[in-house]
Formats: sequence, structure tokens, C-alpha cells
Amino acid sequence: MNVGLICPVWFPVPPEAYGGTERVVALLAEGLVDAGHEVTLFASGDSRTRARLESVFQTAPSEWIGHTYWEMQHLVHAIRRADEFDVLHDHTGLLGLAFGGLVEAPFCHTVHGPLVAGPGRMYDDVTSLAPNAKLISISLNQRKPKPDLPWIANCPNALDLSVYPFRRKSGGEYLLFLGRMSPDKGAHRALAVALETGLPLKIAAKCREPLEIRYFDEFIRPHLGESIEYVGEVGHADKVELLMGARALINPIDWEEPFGLVVIEAMACGTPVIATRRGALPEIMEHGRTGVFVDNYREMEETEVLELADQLDPAELRREIEQRFSPEIMVSNYVAAYEATIAATGA
Amino acid sequence: MNVGLICPVWFPVPPEAYGGTERVVALLAEGLVDAGHEVTLFASGDSRTRARLESVFQTAPSEWIGHTYWEMQHLVHAIRRADEFDVLHDHTGLLGLAFGGLVEAPFCHTVHGPLVAGPGRMYDDVTSLAPNAKLISISLNQRKPKPDLPWIANCPNALDLSVYPFRRKSGGEYLLFLGRMSPDKGAHRALAVALETGLPLKIAAKCREPLEIRYFDEFIRPHLGESIEYVGEVGHADKVELLMGARALINPIDWEEPFGLVVIEAMACGTPVIATRRGALPEIMEHGRTGVFVDNYREMEETEVLELADQLDPAELRREIEQRFSPEIMVSNYVAAYEATIAATGA
Repeated sequence: MNVGLICPVWFPVPPEAYGGTERVVALLAEGLVDAGHEVTLFASGDSRTRARLESVFQTAPSEWIGHTYWEMQHLVHAIRRADEFDVLHDHTGLLGLAFGGLVEAPFCHTVHGPLVAGPGRMYDDVTSLAPNAKLISISLNQRKPKPDLPWIANCPNALDLSVYPFRRKSGGEYLLFLGRMSPDKGAHRALAVALETGLPLKIAAKCREPLEIRYFDEFIRPHLGESIEYVGEVGHADKVELLMGARALINPIDWEEPFGLVVIEAMACGTPVIATRRGALPEIMEHGRTGVFVDNYREMEETEVLELADQLDPAELRREIEQRFSPEIMVSNYVAAYEATIAATGA
Repeated sequence: MNVGLICPVWFPVPPEAYGGTERVVALLAEGLVDAGHEVTLFASGDSRTRARLESVFQTAPSEWIGHTYWEMQHLVHAIRRADEFDVLHDHTGLLGLAFGGLVEAPFCHTVHGPLVAGPGRMYDDVTSLAPNAKLISISLNQRKPKPDLPWIANCPNALDLSVYPFRRKSGGEYLLFLGRMSPDKGAHRALAVALETGLPLKIAAKCREPLEIRYFDEFIRPHLGESIEYVGEVGHADKVELLMGARALINPIDWEEPFGLVVIEAMACGTPVIATRRGALPEIMEHGRTGVFVDNYREMEETEVLELADQLDPAELRREIEQRFSPEIMVSNYVAAYEATIAATGA
């Protein structure tokens, strides 16, 4: 199949540090190439890929994130060439979806963000203006606020298992929080659990935007000390190291997160995850077998909860990821989605 | 006729101070209402108009200027209702043009900016994706870099003559520069002319963005004194006062400005304009009768040039504006453009 993949233009592919969507697109591009497909990746020129790279910008215009004029140049470059591909697959946002409405060629769009409130209403409006575009969810839970959008497939994210070694370090006593500094993600809740249980906590999180810095200064920084450590925004190697040594990943999210990459990253390393039962997480973990759920994050402080996490079999966590969240599975899900898109567009 | 007008969303209509496009849209909306048309104006909720106002935002989201997510909400609101109007007329930018491609109803778009370099290429690309959209220029010179775009009409801007009184103040000895702090507009060139001739100069200019402030600090501020005065960004009343008292407006632009509102503002007040022969200005002024042209701005220092400006008849300048740049003429140009758009869309 001849596929055109449109990545968000704001960061190179794969991303240096934080950047879940870009990481998934990178993996999909490589996986499609491995599966013998012809792949053109529209991304910034500082990206690295075995697909054919097509760029308007030599380096990712990160400082202009969210600005129409920059994203539009990137999108127009791809959309104008829609006829060259069997299918054009967009990973940007609402602007990409709108541009998809300007072509008659097969076009699908993965929704990487949540569909609540304003963005949900905008998806209603833009799909009504671009009725040929087909949508792909990354979890079934993500669709809940908008079940009637033109969904064509559900394609959960995946991991490159070769860079997540399954090698538990023994004696890891610390809890780990991994994400970004935002109330949604809940570093302050992980902190409360650590303070209450007396267990050490390491916090690795993106903290760049003004709101992230304000949240950090107000809720996290005052509690840092010997037992509670902020290790900054970590690259891949440090992240894996932290995961391998952690007693458990604490994931006390308080929003309908559409996927939860950090959870499958931890499981791939054999690290148990203790999480609130929110968003797509019940589609990823099974309580008592491949993860531990609580209804309220304060339950994470209870001895039985941590003991249940200790009892999970790291090998089973790893196996679960290999069987359900491998690149091969994501690629075959997407190829099926492309076929469905092409069939629906012909109809 | 039932017209939907889409204004840029970043500033209220009419604008408080700087904002040429918003001022023209306000005038067009009022003029269409006066001519008996049914007009719906899509603009921020803090706008004032006798058209029916439709707003997504209660106040203009100026701090988000250029951000897709904000402009898209505004545009989708209007575009979804395209079928309710005989014609939808967009004044935003490339994003509005792209959305015009998503509807089959009659849609036209006034290009308010220049079509050189990047924006010119983007207009090529977006019109090729939105072939139903019809374009309106504000001068013939504006079309020069892109003569083959789907032009349907040329509609020069206009002035509300009732708020530009024709009442020359005698004895005005100062030169006036009016615009924004940008090398294109050429406050530093007006300054050089004033310094060389020894004539006093008043500079009224928008100076808000970092680049504007840097330019001001570097090229203008060091020369301010008794004779060279910076009076800030002025509101309408102060602007008219400055125009009425000036010996001449110095307009030493160094770019292909697509129109030149400040020139017709000056002429409406009977104030002669000395300008470089660039952009659309030759479509507005006639050398020796309604204005003075120079090929190089340094010629503005020559005694004959200023004397030629002194000899122009203020009443003739005023009459020229009344006859060629009145709201009535702009409205009738636009109504003809709407009829042409509707006819071309039916075809």
C-alpha cells in the first residue's frame, strides 16, 4: 500500500523527550516500512525515518506551536499530493481534519486528544463540513462523548519493545510518577500518596510551559527533599532506567485520558502500575492480573493495594504488552483501517 | 440580498485604534444595511454594528492572534451556516479561504494582505484546494504577483467621510507620519526627510509588538526632540486633528502595500500626501493633481516637491475621495462582486 502519513509539525519525529503522538507516528512509519508498504512521512526536516521524508520546514517550528500559518504550510504540502497515495493518514489536529475535507481521495485522521468540551464540539462541526474524512480512535473510551462521529477503526497505541528491555532491578523501593506537570496527570496526588505511606517517590515530568511551572512551584517544589525527588524531564534511557528500578508506577490521573502510553511503557518493563480507574486505562490493564485499579487515589495509600501490585507477575505484564501493544499489531490495525477508509470512500 | 460577513476575530469591529481591515468591514456592514440588504456580521461580541451580530467569543481573543484553535471556532460558526445566506463574504485570511472550500454555497474572500513570497504561494495552494472560492482584490497592483488566482472583482477600500471633516487648519507647518513602527512603512525615512529639511515632524504610529518596539528604540527614539515628536498610537479624533493641521503627510513606503488607507484619510481631510510610487498608491493619487509622487524618498527633501504639495487644491483632494472612495461606491462594488460570485457558483 502507498501511504502518506502527516505528523504534527511542531516537533521532530521521533521526539527527543516528551511527545507521545510523535513517538506513535514514528513507530507506525517504521512498522509500515517493515511490513513492505511504501510510506511518505510529512514531518519537519530534522526528523529521522526510513520512510520517505517530506518537509516544508528544515527544523520543527516549535516556537510557533498552534499558529495557523505554520501548520497550514505543512498541511497544504501534504494535502495537495493526496492523489499520489492510496490513503492519506493525518495525525495533526482539527486543521488537518478540515483540510481532509478539501480532497476526495481516501483520508483518515487519528484523534490523539480527548473529545470532551470545546474540542468535542469542534470535531462535530468540522466533520460535518468534511464528511469524507474517516476517524480513528486510540481507545473506545475516547469515543464516549462523541459516539456518532464517522469512526472507521480503533487503533490503540503501541511500543517499540526493543527499546523497553524487560529486566527488573531488584530492591527497587521507590514509587515513580512519569508525565507532565499538570493537575490532570496528578503529580501532586502521587506526592500525597508518598507522604502518607512514607515511601520514596521519584517524579520525572515535563515542566516547560508557564502553567506547568506554576503548578510545579505551588504544589510540588515545597515538598521536595531526600525522600521526594524531582528528576526533571527525562530522555528515553533515563526513563527506562527509572521504570526498571521502580516498585510501582503511580498513575493517579483525574481526566478521561484517551490512551495512557506511560502505562504500557511501565508494563513492558515489568513494572506494576497502580492507577485510578479513568479514561482508557480499563482497556489496557486488568485489575489483579496486569495492574491495580483504585476508584479514589487515596486508596493507593492502603497496604493491600501496594501488596497487590507487588504480587503481580512482571513476566505477565511484559507478555500482555507483547501480545496486545506491539508495533506489528498497531500496524495491522492501521492497515485494516486504511482498507476500510478506501472502501468507504469508494462507496 | 442576504449577506454573511466574516470579520477577523482578533479585534472588535470597529477597532478602537489601529486596524484597517476591521474598519473597512465595519463600514461595509453599515453600508450594506443602509442600502437595504440583510447583513449578518460574524465578529467578536464586543463589536458594535447595525447588522445582526453573531459571535462565538464575547470579547475579541486578541492575545491569541494567529492561533488556529481560536480562529477556527469563529470560522466554523459562520461556515456551517453558509446555506442561510445568498453569499458568504470572508475577510479573515488563509484559514477562512480554506474553510470556504468546504461549502458549495457562494463564497467570496477579500484579500487584505500582500501576495508576495510565502503568502502568495499559500494563496496558490489553498485556492487550488478550494476552487469554488472567489477572490476580491483591494487594488489591481495587489494582484500583480498572482494574476491567475480566481479573481472575481476589485473593490478598493473606502472611508466614512462623515468622520473625516474637511476643515483645513491654517499655518500647519509640520510633516506627519501615520502608520506603524515597521521598516516597510518607513517612519525612519520620514525622519530623515524632516532632519534634512529642518521641518518639524509628528510621528503617530502603532508600537506594540516586540519588533515594532525594537525598531522604534533603534531608529526613531534617538532622534526625538523639540522638532521631531512621537505622539504614540492615536485614536480617531486625534488622528483627524493631526491630519487637519499637517502641511503634508509623508508616506515613504518601501513595499508593495496592497492599498493605503492612510492616504485616502489624509486626502479626505484635504491634506496633501507626498509618497513613494509604490504598491497601490498610483491607483489612488494622480501626481500633480491629487498628490505628489517621488521615485526615491530622498527626493522628498527637495524644495520643489514640498512646494508642489503646497499648491494642491485641498477641495480637489476631498472631492476625489468623495467621488471614488465613498462607502456607497465600495458597497455597490461589493454588491456587484456578490452577484458575480453567485452567478459563477451556479455555473
